[in-house]
Amino acid sequence: MNSTFSDTICAIATPNGVGAIAIIRVSGKEAYQKVSACFSKDLADKTSHTVHFGIFKSPVGVFIDEVLVTVFQEGKSFTGEESVEIACHASPYIQQQIILALIEVGCRLANPGEFSMRAFANGKVDLSQAEAIADLIAAQTKNAHSIALKQLRGNFSSELKDLREKLIHFASLVELELDFAEEDVEFADRSELKTLVNEVLAYIQRLAASFELGNAIKNGVPVAIVGAPNTGKSTLLNQLLGEDRAIVSNIAGTTRDVIEETLNIDGILYRLIDTAGIRENAEEIEAMGIERSREKIIQANIVLCMADSSVPNSIEEVLQWAKEIQETHQDKKVVIVANKQDISVNSIEFSEKALFISAKEGVGIEELKEKLVEIVIGDFSLSDETIVSNIRHYDALIKTAYSLQKAKDNLATGITADFVAMDIRQAMYDLGTITGDISTDDLLGNIFSKFCIGK
Amino acid sequence: MNSTFSDTICAIATPNGVGAIAIIRVSGKEAYQKVSACFSKDLADKTSHTVHFGIFKSPVGVFIDEVLVTVFQEGKSFTGEESVEIACHASPYIQQQIILALIEVGCRLANPGEFSMRAFANGKVDLSQAEAIADLIAAQTKNAHSIALKQLRGNFSSELKDLREKLIHFASLVELELDFAEEDVEFADRSELKTLVNEVLAYIQRLAASFELGNAIKNGVPVAIVGAPNTGKSTLLNQLLGEDRAIVSNIAGTTRDVIEETLNIDGILYRLIDTAGIRENAEEIEAMGIERSREKIIQANIVLCMADSSVPNSIEEVLQWAKEIQETHQDKKVVIVANKQDISVNSIEFSEKALFISAKEGVGIEELKEKLVEIVIGDFSLSDETIVSNIRHYDALIKTAYSLQKAKDNLATGITADFVAMDIRQAMYDLGTITGDISTDDLLGNIFSKFCIGK
Repeated sequence: MNSTFSDTICAIATPNGVGAIAIIRVSGKEAYQKVSACFSKDLADKTSHTVHFGIFKSPVGVFIDEVLVTVFQEGKSFTGEESVEIACHASPYIQQQIILALIEVGCRLANPGEFSMRAFANGKVDLSQAEAIADLIAAQTKNAHSIALKQLRGNFSSELKDLREKLIHFASLVELELDFAEEDVEFADRSELKTLVNEVLAYIQRLAASFELGNAIKNGVPVAIVGAPNTGKSTLLNQLLGEDRAIVSNIAGTTRDVIEETLNIDGILYRLIDTAGIRENAEEIEAMGIERSREKIIQANIVLCMADSSVPNSIEEVLQWAKEIQETHQDKKVVIVANKQDISVNSIEFSEKALFISAKEGVGIEELKEKLVEIVIGDFSLSDETIVSNIRHYDALIKTAYSLQKAKDNLATGITADFVAMDIRQAMYDLGTITGDISTDDLLGNIFSKFCIGK
Repeated sequence: MNSTFSDTICAIATPNGVGAIAIIRVSGKEAYQKVSACFSKDLADKTSHTVHFGIFKSPVGVFIDEVLVTVFQEGKSFTGEESVEIACHASPYIQQQIILALIEVGCRLANPGEFSMRAFANGKVDLSQAEAIADLIAAQTKNAHSIALKQLRGNFSSELKDLREKLIHFASLVELELDFAEEDVEFADRSELKTLVNEVLAYIQRLAASFELGNAIKNGVPVAIVGAPNTGKSTLLNQLLGEDRAIVSNIAGTTRDVIEETLNIDGILYRLIDTAGIRENAEEIEAMGIERSREKIIQANIVLCMADSSVPNSIEEVLQWAKEIQETHQDKKVVIVANKQDISVNSIEFSEKALFISAKEGVGIEELKEKLVEIVIGDFSLSDETIVSNIRHYDALIKTAYSLQKAKDNLATGITADFVAMDIRQAMYDLGTITGDISTDDLLGNIFSKFCIGK
């Protein structure tokens, strides 16, 4: 394999800050040679995937650190290029000095995402796999992690490849018909074509539909809790957050302000909107009731409307609110929660329309969580199905579906093959942009520039 | 070599946060076996210092990440134990899952500094080398880095070893005399003993004296700029900080508030005290003049007393201030700076006592910087001499010097050999604590608990 890039790039690959070890990545045609110029051993004859202890020094011989250097032969590295990883002590000063030394011997500081971009350009990963790396690193929950990992492992890519092959088969049938158009021959069995386009279209539509779930998993689901004063919103919030926080705050570097207002249920992150208001200034803010909540509702995907079932007419009132919210915001999911079921005055009457809980006693909380999960997951299967979580992929799928729909319609009207062929070519083009079989410099620049340096 | 620890420890070794790569370290008798239980390849037969790509999974088979695993055979690793380094994608979630999986297969989360502690216990580094790692990571300047690196490379340790050997030679001579004490024989040539003790004592005292410089290099040198209103303190501050900041703020993760008020001259960090006062509330604060500066002076090692040489009597006044400061704080270095030399009314008269500058024109700034460096470095040679920067080492050197001084005094008075032998034994004991030839669990616990986890 021949790499297409002539220069050798370098960057710090580990997070910023102080720790025991940091990694500096070097990739390019002269990676061994350039690092050897700063290292106490010559890397030229080293076997790929071996580690070498030595002294890293500046080109003029100033000792910088004791390091472990790992070599990756061209074709066997992440980027596909000759690569070196330098593991040094994780001091900002040392990392800076090593980078400066590498630049002095002719390396260039890598652009954001440039290692991944080279891996793509050298055919080591496709575009959707490269994008999965960023998602994988950002993943905070089991499901977000699982979706990104599957994508990185190429599950999504191989499904797309299957679809693409079906479309190629379809196109070849249509094109064959086209070649003999003047003879007015229909080689392709149009009923087979129809079945095929229906099948692929349904699959693409299902993938596109999974984006709502994928996006919710990737970015979290904004939830608003609204209700009259003293309904128990703050108690419910504490119940929901209570158990979760202790688990999340363990071990890794999740920041405290993220934990504070998010809730991880079954690997889905719910972002509770404006809970500071509920918590800290309860009376003042709650006093304004539903009016005050308008802002929160606009930001939310799920609205929990809370009633105090110990108060006569409270549930009726909340049902009315919920109806208004649903009419104004048809994209929102509204859940009606009747609190204080232990002292309820009307639990039987409304048992179909509201979820009865006691936030104080912890009754019904599990059911509420199940409800929240059910709303997000719908009929998708997280373990078996591919869930699309990247908006670029979603856009491409929507475009693909549009062209396929046109092809389907045109087939139905018995239009000539050249129109259908055009639709199919467009669908294949759009589908190809996901994996990068079709790509432009603009598209690539746009994708990789969002990566961090060192990736 | 047989490791003394029975369990296998693990920890994240790279800084917290998000990046491309993170490293998880595993060390102990069963490192290969335990990691193999979570990895797609068996590490048992892998050659030391080789890297293996594969899937890291939980013990029940849940995919966690694609990783690179490096193996280090017992005796050839940092800790001296069988070790594995797992390079994963730097997501907090993934790192957490990998650590949890390792704990499930029987690893234990490492205590702070436990990897270094094991390296010490297994004879891979001595105590002063282990301590140097922490200093190396914290080093922000060329000199701090250079001192720590020399210490890590064992320069200090080998000097101490030489000194210890001289003391052992000395002790053996004295003990020989002791064996024959009843026969009243003086085997040891007392003049040779005197020369030897003088030589070692002088060396130890020089090392101890270097601590002031070492500490200044390690922790920075606090500097106060004081003077009457409108003397030009703020202008001088800008001149001093001006050029430096652009260089420091590059590349690595130095925090902005550190940069703001520090000045790196020739690899020494000067911390400018209360410059916010000078910068932001200039008039109000400056109006209180020298009185107001008392607090700053107490915190400083170097006090820059500024005069406005365009104002008659200003220099006399500042010389008087400086005299008072020096009398009250004999440990401070006072530098008298006469600003506005371009419009000075008395530059010749005081040219011996004050450094004439023009902060506005940038005249004399280099000379001032040289002066600041000269004050800190004194007659030490940063390139050739060992500079002690660790307060524990300083304490041990002071104790050693105390015992040697006693030995010297006792030799001079012709006291019997057993007293001298006691002094020498004490000196050897104290010197031995630096490298850990002499150590207690308390001492070790105290040293390593200050390290970060993963080190």
